[in-house]
Amino acid sequence: MASGKINVSVENIFPLIKKFLYSDHEIFLRELVSNATDATLKLKHLTSIGEAKVEYGNPIIEVKIDKEAKKLHIIDQGLGMTADEVEKYINQIAFSGAEEFLEKYKDSAKDSGVIGHFGLGFYSAFMVASKVEIITKSYKDEPAAHWTCDGSPEFSLVPHDKTDRGSEIILHIAEDSLEFLEEYKISELLTKYNKFMPIPIKFGTKQEALPKPEDAPEDYKTEYQEIDNIINNPNPAWTKQPVDLTDEDYKKFYHELYPMQFEEPLFNIHLNVDYPFNLTGILYFPKMSADLQMQKDKIQLYQNQVFVTDNVEGIVPEFLGMLKGVIDSPDIPLNVSRSYLQADGNVKKISNYITRKVADKLKSLFNENREDFEQKWNDIKIVLEYGMLSEPKFYEKAGDFVLYPTTDDKYFTLSELKETIASNQTDKNGKLVVLYASNKDAQHSYIDIAKEKGYQVLLLDSPIVSHLIQKLEADNENLTFARVDADHIDKLIQKDDVQISKLSEEEQTNLKSILEAIVPKANYTVQLEPMDSNAAPFMITQPEFMRRMKEMSATGGGGMFGMGNFPDMYNLVVNSNSNLATAILQTEDKSAQELLVKQALDLAKISQGLLKGEELTAFVKRSFETLK
Amino acid sequence: MASGKINVSVENIFPLIKKFLYSDHEIFLRELVSNATDATLKLKHLTSIGEAKVEYGNPIIEVKIDKEAKKLHIIDQGLGMTADEVEKYINQIAFSGAEEFLEKYKDSAKDSGVIGHFGLGFYSAFMVASKVEIITKSYKDEPAAHWTCDGSPEFSLVPHDKTDRGSEIILHIAEDSLEFLEEYKISELLTKYNKFMPIPIKFGTKQEALPKPEDAPEDYKTEYQEIDNIINNPNPAWTKQPVDLTDEDYKKFYHELYPMQFEEPLFNIHLNVDYPFNLTGILYFPKMSADLQMQKDKIQLYQNQVFVTDNVEGIVPEFLGMLKGVIDSPDIPLNVSRSYLQADGNVKKISNYITRKVADKLKSLFNENREDFEQKWNDIKIVLEYGMLSEPKFYEKAGDFVLYPTTDDKYFTLSELKETIASNQTDKNGKLVVLYASNKDAQHSYIDIAKEKGYQVLLLDSPIVSHLIQKLEADNENLTFARVDADHIDKLIQKDDVQISKLSEEEQTNLKSILEAIVPKANYTVQLEPMDSNAAPFMITQPEFMRRMKEMSATGGGGMFGMGNFPDMYNLVVNSNSNLATAILQTEDKSAQELLVKQALDLAKISQGLLKGEELTAFVKRSFETLK
Repeated sequence: MASGKINVSVENIFPLIKKFLYSDHEIFLRELVSNATDATLKLKHLTSIGEAKVEYGNPIIEVKIDKEAKKLHIIDQGLGMTADEVEKYINQIAFSGAEEFLEKYKDSAKDSGVIGHFGLGFYSAFMVASKVEIITKSYKDEPAAHWTCDGSPEFSLVPHDKTDRGSEIILHIAEDSLEFLEEYKISELLTKYNKFMPIPIKFGTKQEALPKPEDAPEDYKTEYQEIDNIINNPNPAWTKQPVDLTDEDYKKFYHELYPMQFEEPLFNIHLNVDYPFNLTGILYFPKMSADLQMQKDKIQLYQNQVFVTDNVEGIVPEFLGMLKGVIDSPDIPLNVSRSYLQADGNVKKISNYITRKVADKLKSLFNENREDFEQKWNDIKIVLEYGMLSEPKFYEKAGDFVLYPTTDDKYFTLSELKETIASNQTDKNGKLVVLYASNKDAQHSYIDIAKEKGYQVLLLDSPIVSHLIQKLEADNENLTFARVDADHIDKLIQKDDVQISKLSEEEQTNLKSILEAIVPKANYTVQLEPMDSNAAPFMITQPEFMRRMKEMSATGGGGMFGMGNFPDMYNLVVNSNSNLATAILQTEDKSAQELLVKQALDLAKISQGLLKGEELTAFVKRSFETLK
Repeated sequence: MASGKINVSVENIFPLIKKFLYSDHEIFLRELVSNATDATLKLKHLTSIGEAKVEYGNPIIEVKIDKEAKKLHIIDQGLGMTADEVEKYINQIAFSGAEEFLEKYKDSAKDSGVIGHFGLGFYSAFMVASKVEIITKSYKDEPAAHWTCDGSPEFSLVPHDKTDRGSEIILHIAEDSLEFLEEYKISELLTKYNKFMPIPIKFGTKQEALPKPEDAPEDYKTEYQEIDNIINNPNPAWTKQPVDLTDEDYKKFYHELYPMQFEEPLFNIHLNVDYPFNLTGILYFPKMSADLQMQKDKIQLYQNQVFVTDNVEGIVPEFLGMLKGVIDSPDIPLNVSRSYLQADGNVKKISNYITRKVADKLKSLFNENREDFEQKWNDIKIVLEYGMLSEPKFYEKAGDFVLYPTTDDKYFTLSELKETIASNQTDKNGKLVVLYASNKDAQHSYIDIAKEKGYQVLLLDSPIVSHLIQKLEADNENLTFARVDADHIDKLIQKDDVQISKLSEEEQTNLKSILEAIVPKANYTVQLEPMDSNAAPFMITQPEFMRRMKEMSATGGGGMFGMGNFPDMYNLVVNSNSNLATAILQTEDKSAQELLVKQALDLAKISQGLLKGEELTAFVKRSFETLK
């Protein structure tokens, strides 16, 4: 043989569909309800352009369980099919009706929101059904058709006496899929996939109390009526224009998306773009909480109001992963791997667009109501700081709204901060020194000392702040950051004025050797400083560089290799001008001298949170004894 | 029409394959190398049973890039195909050659390790190639065949002059997939998917130094030769019997699996079962480290030595997610959703089997070398404790090997612990009270007091320990846990002996009202206790119940709703028999009395780590002044 045509073995197509079409069997319901929605939207379109001369009305889709007969019905009032159309759209697998429709009505159909892309969706019914029937009546003046297939490639197609327009799909649920006859299961699936689909979906009935008659006796029992239960909201907020929505509407929609969420969101960002790709959506900044449960409510991805997934990795920039809300876009390729997604140019554009929109919104929130923005800062900073580190495009814009709060609850942008501290915090080498604390309590005494000098002390307490500082230093010439406990304050911001030492050179050498003999060498380097005589006599500092490298190493992705395993390095700064320094020098009794130094060291360690365990217990015991 | 046969539209099958077959295009290489491996293993089987009268030899698979011609070659020396077989296996899509083979040679083929299940794998070539050629020569005495197809359903099939046995697949790489002509990319894919496949795979060449001639001059330059580069290990450790492997072999394989991992594993568990499902594998307990990077090396899932995924969620019990290693099983359904996996009976059995094997191994490690097990405890406890909470089957077995270490580094099983403390730590109501600390340093003074009474104090410092304690209490009648700082020690384990109070009733009332006037009511409840006069005069305790509920709430999945937001509750326990108590009562000067109480309160707060920020700074300053 020289050439031929590849043959698809039909006998094997059904097992293949079962195995490959969708990894998740429950998807069949999403597909069938999507088809019903398509059929209804197509009819709407055809009536609107005058092609179908029928009344569109208020069509709904109905899902019904017949548990006894083991059947599931999906009934629509859409355009229906003639026998010829069944032959064409159903009997020819892999022939996409929706694509042909879109091709034919290219321009007018653009906004009709037709969902289906491949004609295979219908066949997903065979993932859960041993037999499938279609009873369908076209809007055209032709008799209804009744198609039946038991999953073999054989089907039967006969006329039917159905007279009302639309299609009814009947699934004879297979023995291994009986869960899909349970009301709770179908309800769960409809809520998950179809909650915001554009045609009302009726499932089950609910009881509603009838009004109490005016002449009702005292022991009147309330009567109930069964009413239709529409399980979806066909017009979710993201499909509307921002101008048509109030703050209340946005909040209401937030709770519709996350019924178990009681906290209000901080603010929202309405996404709306149609070029070069279509995307709508609403993102919410939630109030961060320690409640782990919260992190599970994620951003939901929809396509034409059909839920697809809540895994938006690769589509939404990673730093916005803590946000909530919805994104709806027909332009995001599905059924592809995450690595493929990340390489896809269109998806990259979407991700960049979202980043830009978030930055723009933050900027306008900042400009419109700075006070409010400052109040929310603590809840949003971790997202923004992470964004600055991970998204260069976001970093570029961050200068406009990213805040640096002080321990006194003032909030500066970086440029405001620079301007404020320029005169007082520029050192003798022309470097602008930003002082910060990571914990107001733990570093209280150091903060106090810096504030006495009139310095601003930032409060930077996010876990990734060491990385951020490193980046800011790299990008801002002559800007340097130092934690308040990194050194004695006159060393942190070195000015030209020299402190005069009360002690002679000899006394200083003497004091130093006394101290070094008592203070454990492995842990502390003794550093004598002639300071104000009222300043703390003993103080423990931790040099900036090593500490920051260790922190960066601990939070990953930076710092020097293996730095995390280095021991902590501390200096013991002793104020040589303090009365205590003189007292130590003058104490002749060696053991009294040692006691004095040790007690002073203990107090310095307490200030830095370093006195622990046995040492602390002994200190407290000793102190209680002094009290008595 | 009354009936007919569903028609699969061939024209549409290629786009469908591209879209649905695999979400990840790179899979094509795994599929083609798997096919080549199958063809080789089939030949091995046929020669071994005498059906193929040819020399099996030492066949390899070769992967070659021809960058200039934009071609990728996959060449095997397996059984090859005749023109008829190409017609049957290639031209009929969805016809599984492997299944037919397995059916025919059912019993003898069971162990031959044939991989393919559906005949579709080959067609994945069209995900990256615009044109595909097969040049194949069967082991049978028939001419070679040359098949060509450009992705339309048309193909050509002509004779070829190839004389050596086996198949060569030639992919004409499509313009949008040129990355698959890069050596680094192919090398990456072969390493990811084919590193442990059973037939040697040759890719590229590497240079090896030739031996230096004996009479080489001083300035001799080393010469190199190019040698074949076999990129896989066809006989990975997990395919061998445990008796054939030494500890060294297991460690070596660990580093083969994780080349970037320098730490040694703590121990390994060899899995090996063939009924009711097939599964082999080796799991390793790694040394836990703070290095976040480590957590990314996960358990790898293989099927017949082909890498499938490193996401084993649903297959391996969640609590073993921190382990490393490989699992190889042909019985795990792929291409299905995680929720489906979790419902699948076979998969549940696999998960249960793994749980049981891990428990058995832990028990034998414990029995064989308890000292060694105790030393490793700190590295493995979090996994085991989480397992006790999440897997009832594991919890049942945990009694045999789960340890409860004390602050003195003794290790008890629960039953040993009960026996040890029964005589001394049973309270007057017959309750056995287990004392524990969560931090040796922070709770040092409380631990000290308990140890003075001869009590054992456990050190339970895992983040989920409050949940574990709660469970142990529920399952062990008359067993109760209390943290050492939950109350004054005589209240934690109440005995019958009564402490006599030095103070009269009136003095006690008086002392209490003095204290309550000074100590902030909102934070501390004052509790007078007549204790040993040498015991700490002031002490802060935190009642067990509320603290534990708050901890459980903070770590999720337990505790009472919203408990996490309750403020911390503390008691100030004052030893009414202490000299300080008497001193406070006797101090007439109100402000001196207040100073005394405040200093004592500060010291008690320091012991419990509660003196912070401004208060701590003031305390240290005051204390420095006393020193001078």
